[in-house]
Amino acid sequence: MDTLEAIMTRKSVRNFTDQAISDEALEIILKAGMSGPSCVNARDWSFVVTRESELLKKMADANGRPADPLRGAALGILVLGDLERAFKLAPDYWIIDGSIAAQNMILAAHAMGIGSVWLGTYPQMERVEAQRKLLGLPDTVIPHSILAFGYPDSSKETISGDTRNDRYESNRIHMDKW
Amino acid sequence: MDTLEAIMTRKSVRNFTDQAISDEALEIILKAGMSGPSCVNARDWSFVVTRESELLKKMADANGRPADPLRGAALGILVLGDLERAFKLAPDYWIIDGSIAAQNMILAAHAMGIGSVWLGTYPQMERVEAQRKLLGLPDTVIPHSILAFGYPDSSKETISGDTRNDRYESNRIHMDKW
Repeated sequence: MDTLEAIMTRKSVRNFTDQAISDEALEIILKAGMSGPSCVNARDWSFVVTRESELLKKMADANGRPADPLRGAALGILVLGDLERAFKLAPDYWIIDGSIAAQNMILAAHAMGIGSVWLGTYPQMERVEAQRKLLGLPDTVIPHSILAFGYPDSSKETISGDTRNDRYESNRIHMDKW
Repeated sequence: MDTLEAIMTRKSVRNFTDQAISDEALEIILKAGMSGPSCVNARDWSFVVTRESELLKKMADANGRPADPLRGAALGILVLGDLERAFKLAPDYWIIDGSIAAQNMILAAHAMGIGSVWLGTYPQMERVEAQRKLLGLPDTVIPHSILAFGYPDSSKETISGDTRNDRYESNRIHMDKW
């Protein structure tokens, strides 16, 4: 899929078919996640990856009702920030670096016909702590976001690409000054 | 350009030619920025956009030495978080939402042959305050990142796409558990 088309048409998908996501597609998604820029090239992230339905359900339980799409997802990826790798002078760049990784992953998935929804974890600290407890994460690792992936259920999702020009708001643009 | 190719080959470009970026390309970049997801669809960002060399230099001065590529850029976009639009229960999602917008913009640019480098501002608060002062921003608006864009100077930049597989680190992946 063309890059501009992918960016302009990608939208959240919350209802998935039972179709599995292949190892090959998963590897492409993860490569995409690791191929973005990061602050001082710190690459201060890691990923908990699962296709196990029980773990997907537990991750959903820990992340609140908006994470329900995980229960029917073929794949879940929890993006984590890694403070041991983060830029020492300003470690909070991990938040930005994790976001870049996540956006790359959902765009790569969309390009392969795989739908996704981005489920917020950080900065909602009750979700952060619940994921930490569920997975037994060390203190230097911070849950960022969960991505739920799967092939779109066309009976419940409009898959065809509307061009999303409707998301453009000219009043968000300030030319040459505030 | 194919989406996966764009994601896998994009890299920072810091040396630009004098070639201008057209209004049409700028509009596509901005549409890409606004077409990503955001927390509760808050769309809690705005953008200061400039092709004026004097303002690009002042923005570089305010952002420290790593922002030097702005001095030779054809276009600079300061991504801003907008707290008036942010999710009330967890406003810090503005950091993630701004990152998504920025990543979409640099990928869209790359797909059109336009190079870019992402210049960190937030969370380095001296940079945040310097941009705020330079542009006279209200307190509800927070400088996030600056993106410098331009056509790559092939005498100083390797433009051809290496596939960036080298960015893949298998030890970042935790299957089914931490």
